Amino acid sequence: MATNTTVRADAHAPAITEILARFVAEHPSRGWDDAVEHEAHRTFLNWMGCAVGAARHESTEAALRAMQVLAPSAQASLPGRSERVDMASAALIQGIASHTFDFDDTHLKTIIHPAGPVASAVLPLAEHLGSSGRAVIDALVLGIDVSCRLGNVVYPEHYDRGWHITGTTGMMGAAAACARLLGLDAHRTQMALGLAASQPVGLREQFGTMTKPFHPGGAARAGLLAALMAREGFTASPRAIEAPRGWAQVVSTKCDWSQATDELGQRFEISFNTYKPFACGIVIHPSIDACVQLRERGVRAEDIARIELRVHSLVLELTGKKEPADGLQSKFSVFHGCAAGLMFGRAGEEEFSDAIVQREDVVALRRKVQATVDDRIREESADVTAHLNNGETIHLFVEHAIGSLQRPMTDANLEAKLTHLSAPVLGDARTRPLIDACWQLGHADNVHSLVSAMRV
Amino acid sequence: MATNTTVRADAHAPAITEILARFVAEHPSRGWDDAVEHEAHRTFLNWMGCAVGAARHESTEAALRAMQVLAPSAQASLPGRSERVDMASAALIQGIASHTFDFDDTHLKTIIHPAGPVASAVLPLAEHLGSSGRAVIDALVLGIDVSCRLGNVVYPEHYDRGWHITGTTGMMGAAAACARLLGLDAHRTQMALGLAASQPVGLREQFGTMTKPFHPGGAARAGLLAALMAREGFTASPRAIEAPRGWAQVVSTKCDWSQATDELGQRFEISFNTYKPFACGIVIHPSIDACVQLRERGVRAEDIARIELRVHSLVLELTGKKEPADGLQSKFSVFHGCAAGLMFGRAGEEEFSDAIVQREDVVALRRKVQATVDDRIREESADVTAHLNNGETIHLFVEHAIGSLQRPMTDANLEAKLTHLSAPVLGDARTRPLIDACWQLGHADNVHSLVSAMRV
Repeated sequence: MATNTTVRADAHAPAITEILARFVAEHPSRGWDDAVEHEAHRTFLNWMGCAVGAARHESTEAALRAMQVLAPSAQASLPGRSERVDMASAALIQGIASHTFDFDDTHLKTIIHPAGPVASAVLPLAEHLGSSGRAVIDALVLGIDVSCRLGNVVYPEHYDRGWHITGTTGMMGAAAACARLLGLDAHRTQMALGLAASQPVGLREQFGTMTKPFHPGGAARAGLLAALMAREGFTASPRAIEAPRGWAQVVSTKCDWSQATDELGQRFEISFNTYKPFACGIVIHPSIDACVQLRERGVRAEDIARIELRVHSLVLELTGKKEPADGLQSKFSVFHGCAAGLMFGRAGEEEFSDAIVQREDVVALRRKVQATVDDRIREESADVTAHLNNGETIHLFVEHAIGSLQRPMTDANLEAKLTHLSAPVLGDARTRPLIDACWQLGHADNVHSLVSAMRV
Repeated sequence: MATNTTVRADAHAPAITEILARFVAEHPSRGWDDAVEHEAHRTFLNWMGCAVGAARHESTEAALRAMQVLAPSAQASLPGRSERVDMASAALIQGIASHTFDFDDTHLKTIIHPAGPVASAVLPLAEHLGSSGRAVIDALVLGIDVSCRLGNVVYPEHYDRGWHITGTTGMMGAAAACARLLGLDAHRTQMALGLAASQPVGLREQFGTMTKPFHPGGAARAGLLAALMAREGFTASPRAIEAPRGWAQVVSTKCDWSQATDELGQRFEISFNTYKPFACGIVIHPSIDACVQLRERGVRAEDIARIELRVHSLVLELTGKKEPADGLQSKFSVFHGCAAGLMFGRAGEEEFSDAIVQREDVVALRRKVQATVDDRIREESADVTAHLNNGETIHLFVEHAIGSLQRPMTDANLEAKLTHLSAPVLGDARTRPLIDACWQLGHADNVHSLVSAMRV
């Protein structure tokens, strides 16, 4: 028989579950400024590109086949595919797809990828309910606010301990968003958050396997089902998030409660969302960015004698693989990232494919990249010197990479990114209508045109 | 950007995920002695009674309505009900039902309720696949072995921290059992265990709400889906359980690896399964048992001046509610438990109903129970002195309550328990065939007669 002790217990934690539930249930539609509203569309559009892009990935195929064994009813569509499945399976599958390329969005304060769990849960439910686009955007903003705020409460201790924070906060974001879309009152929303709190999905040990993208998918499904069950009267602890044996204190020794509630309804965490320009870990981005800039200055692979890279030690610790054997390994190689940036002017999913990684000219260029650790350079920066065959040297210092909060992706950048992801799946002609449907979502009577645009 | 540190990390943990996967995939059918085989049937029969008994409980109704929103296909039946739903929803719903009365089985070493996640996942899958009863029993024994062994690895620290261990080990037990029933090889079984490891379900904060029984249901569903996805080629970390950022080290500071693998295939954890005689937390059982014994000695409520109870401090800490307002609260009242035991000679779900808890004579008797803490008395014991109105006193010391490993429920006790649970749902006439189908399961060509017997 266990004793009653816990490692630490704060019985006086504020009533976060209730406060967030009331916020989600009662905050007015479009109760935020234009910047937040626009960020919601950027978030959604970026998520859509990722989900469409991975529509035929083996992870997506395997998850779909498994769900089809359940012979689900055709309630909801899937980005980039023709099958329709039940809402819960749809949430799972598009959650997996949208994170498969590791190319989605990032809430930098917590490294949460917020759209994965939230948008993946909201869209199937909206299709089934016939919700307005307005309601979808509202649910997206509020759901992301909940999961990122709860991430702020426990980050970084929670993440350092080994939890994949996207799926271990995302189920509450998804529950909040779905509760909102279902029009649940504050009490039932609180029950939905509570039920979701019992279902964290994600261990960092899974990085490098299909189970990593499973985490946002599993969180999306858990949150959607929690909201559906709460609607039917299912109960949970009203303090499931903050109680001594509730979510936060069980999964983290750091519990900064004020992060959950300060400026609620004024500051929206979606404002701090960023979008990856390159399909790899964020620490390589400044180096790739510098090499893309070299290309923009007219430098070509054949001009290069060597490239000298000075970066923070973390960059080599996380992405120091000198000779990546395949696509997956190349995502952990700053050397490959630089070669791709210079040779192609971009580093999307294609540039991290086996074929490109093993191409002779790419290998040759990669071997000309030399990296030195210099901890005076911050993690978000890179110092690059290109020594050309003609004796010339070009020096570039990237303080903040494209895609950072300081140098955000422009809307045009986001469109180009979606286009690259979508074109091989939907074709060029169908990509423009999908982009338009994303931008117009907040004004759409329902999600029909969006869903038609995203299906094959 | 998070640093790379974890609180503690044992990179040399043995390859538990792989060892358990091979065990589940390759251990021979009925590779255990008759006692284990019989325990498997007792476990199953007891689980069935609990699931049938709660078939019309509001938790079951709410979960079922929510799943029906998904318009699932009719793949699997539900104990005590007429609806058929998809396998995953069936696993969820019967997992909830079987734990709703807190009346199921207990692996005392860990306080895991092992059948909930495992049997709830296995039965729907077996119905769908047309599996033999033999295969169901094999899957049950192996699945329970996996979840209880993993419970042994992390108990008690994991539980003390606030995790509801039934749902935070059960998803791996359910995955193991379903992988076995699907005939997955050791590698795919390992992937199923890995995918399940990312999905612990359960916080102790939820105790007293419907989300507590949700935990085994959620674990059952997660495990079933993990096995289905692994069959389709979905991948997970091969060391998802034991790696530094894998399940055990993330959810517990205690990791006794040998518990997972010692005597694997020789000692079966199902041998240590016990079955509750009373529909409440196990710490009250010795006190109730003593009061039932008082009744058996001819003592009646009207004879009682007062009852003096001496118990370990944990008993009052967990179940010290003096004036329970309703059925749910009464499960946390040793005072009510004693009153029920003396007045009715039993303490099944009915004796913890609102009607009984609020009955005047029950309230009056409850108020005559006085409890004193005495930590020389062990948690599994109770010292009871009845002071009668005629001046007589009767002293009873219960060292081990009925239902403990030392005084196990007999097969006849188990049948009587199932009958009490099933009669109000299936009726008396249909209960005997259900009991017979449970006992005969290991020899049944398929689960048809069992499923027919359990449906309404």
